[in-house]
Amino acid sequence: MTFDNYNDFVWSDGKLNSTSITITRTKKHKPHPSDDELRFGSSFTDHMFCMDYNESNGWHDPRIVPYQPLILDPATAVLHYAQSVFDGLKVYRCQDGIIRFFRATKHAERLNRSCKYLCIPTIDSEMIIQSFHALVSIDQTWIPSKRGTALYLRPTVIASEAFLGVHSAKTYTYFLILSPVGSYYEEGISPVKIMATDTYVRAVKGGLGAAKTAANYAASIFASEDAKKFGCNQVLWLDGIEHRYLDEIGTMNVMMKIKDEIITPPLNGAILDGVTRDSILTLCRDLGIKVSERRISIEEVMTAAHSGALNEMWGTGTAVVVLSIGELRYKNDKVIINGGKPGAFMQKLYDMIVSIQYGDIKDCHNWMSVLQTLK
Amino acid sequence: MTFDNYNDFVWSDGKLNSTSITITRTKKHKPHPSDDELRFGSSFTDHMFCMDYNESNGWHDPRIVPYQPLILDPATAVLHYAQSVFDGLKVYRCQDGIIRFFRATKHAERLNRSCKYLCIPTIDSEMIIQSFHALVSIDQTWIPSKRGTALYLRPTVIASEAFLGVHSAKTYTYFLILSPVGSYYEEGISPVKIMATDTYVRAVKGGLGAAKTAANYAASIFASEDAKKFGCNQVLWLDGIEHRYLDEIGTMNVMMKIKDEIITPPLNGAILDGVTRDSILTLCRDLGIKVSERRISIEEVMTAAHSGALNEMWGTGTAVVVLSIGELRYKNDKVIINGGKPGAFMQKLYDMIVSIQYGDIKDCHNWMSVLQTLK
Repeated sequence: MTFDNYNDFVWSDGKLNSTSITITRTKKHKPHPSDDELRFGSSFTDHMFCMDYNESNGWHDPRIVPYQPLILDPATAVLHYAQSVFDGLKVYRCQDGIIRFFRATKHAERLNRSCKYLCIPTIDSEMIIQSFHALVSIDQTWIPSKRGTALYLRPTVIASEAFLGVHSAKTYTYFLILSPVGSYYEEGISPVKIMATDTYVRAVKGGLGAAKTAANYAASIFASEDAKKFGCNQVLWLDGIEHRYLDEIGTMNVMMKIKDEIITPPLNGAILDGVTRDSILTLCRDLGIKVSERRISIEEVMTAAHSGALNEMWGTGTAVVVLSIGELRYKNDKVIINGGKPGAFMQKLYDMIVSIQYGDIKDCHNWMSVLQTLK
Repeated sequence: MTFDNYNDFVWSDGKLNSTSITITRTKKHKPHPSDDELRFGSSFTDHMFCMDYNESNGWHDPRIVPYQPLILDPATAVLHYAQSVFDGLKVYRCQDGIIRFFRATKHAERLNRSCKYLCIPTIDSEMIIQSFHALVSIDQTWIPSKRGTALYLRPTVIASEAFLGVHSAKTYTYFLILSPVGSYYEEGISPVKIMATDTYVRAVKGGLGAAKTAANYAASIFASEDAKKFGCNQVLWLDGIEHRYLDEIGTMNVMMKIKDEIITPPLNGAILDGVTRDSILTLCRDLGIKVSERRISIEEVMTAAHSGALNEMWGTGTAVVVLSIGELRYKNDKVIINGGKPGAFMQKLYDMIVSIQYGDIKDCHNWMSVLQTLK
């Protein structure tokens, strides 16, 4: 390690110059995986960003250090009580060679909303954004170029207090790691099979379902593994009260096209306010398509599928962007959607969003933000 | 550190001789806190027990090492997706000088049941029990003597794979840490104030509520902090479907005495199968008291409180044993239970269970097991 104390470094646009981020560069650069072999979240870049919180200093000591293990007392609260939040976003090497984030501010805001659900002290949004720019700037050679690839950012906050009583912790660590990624599923964008569950519940209103927090993912593991036993890739979550209304698919928001209407469950307190969900709905509205954020029951979906009115169904999320659903099972019923192939409308949405992300078409909503590099 | 490779050590009863636990003793012994200053879960003993899992070797490399931090890649699954389980039990220095565990087998079995909910590979129960005996044996000078104190064991399993895709991990670590403890609450056994919530939900059937896993505790933090704002110590969880039937109190099971009947919610898939709950119900049945494991609504409780039929109410858990509820709030209603004092029946149960734990009275149910020390 070399210590480069950039205590007064200034961003190129002069905007982000108020903060002192200490930078310690690695001496051992890891080999980059080739664009073709990229999967999701299995390789990480050379550096990471860290920052700590305690009651006397608030969030303090922002620093970039070589990617390294966390040193955690075995009594650390996050390991026992999952007081933690995270988010996930991507930065792209656009076709014009410029590096741009997709909706970085919205992701930073959601991280803070998640913090509130978990009683974690929020972080100045500008500081979160700075962490994105500073770390990506240093590890920018890791951003892949191939269409379908990106550099994924995983900002995370964990309770770091070592104490076994159950309460909101007094100390926290924010860390940001970067992973060059390809397709989330090994199958790529080919349609997946899903199984609606009336047995397992991800979350209900009044719980943590709307937060991006570890607990929701823990709750999803058993049902996902169960779905795999039936030859399905993921589970379609129904509401936890009546086991009837659609909530999410796996760890994605769910949408469908029934006749000429795009339908997706409303933000009911049990599902995540997905950034890709919001982006897709915005694009649909741009296209003049009718969008309904409303409750939809599994019976309505199955009936629409059998009658041929259900044209397309897909999941949305940062990792997959849009993922086509080719088959849906519920109890003893099974339907093939759009002949098991990705639908034309979903494909159009995917192409639009990807074209914005890689800078092929105009970014009318100012979703993309250019990487500010170190001077 | 010195390496004492007790690869072939044999337990004093000759029973647990099949396993090789590598022991590395610390050279730096920490000072013991005095019995009087003990709180819950804030100081830890000199050593810990660890064991790893991977697909080729199963659970392997059981070892006792000096208490030390865990070294975790920042992408480790437990930090992002809370794939983890734990349990909590106590070992006592009894009045005859002999060291005994309280219901160690039942806790080991529950740890494995929790593993199943989280798709974590189960551990041979005998190995779990061995870890209890081996580690406590080495750190036995840490077991406090004063009535009301004990050595608390926290066996924990965490997903240790560094990978950001959401799935059941391929590698895990089991670790056991020990903490000399006094009262869980700073208030000791004085009655607490609780607030029933019809807003927040801990868990519903089909979720993880019956598992002892981090996610349930994450879900409890916000509501607990909210209750504190209203001058209450804990939250009374109602079911997540109708927000009407009692589930738990904070992180304890809930019980009450209405006229001559002891009532507690049934094991409905949303609440924890508490070991103290089971012990208390067993003692009640021994005493010939009518016990009802049945749904009970908050309206029924409030009505019984106002009519004077609700004599006593309490929480049960390993940390507190029995905790008296002196005040209950629900919406704009507030009731004082038993004049805000611990009830006589609850006190009798507490005394019985504590007398068994410290070896004052006969252990009719074989709940206590003597510590097997190293030869």
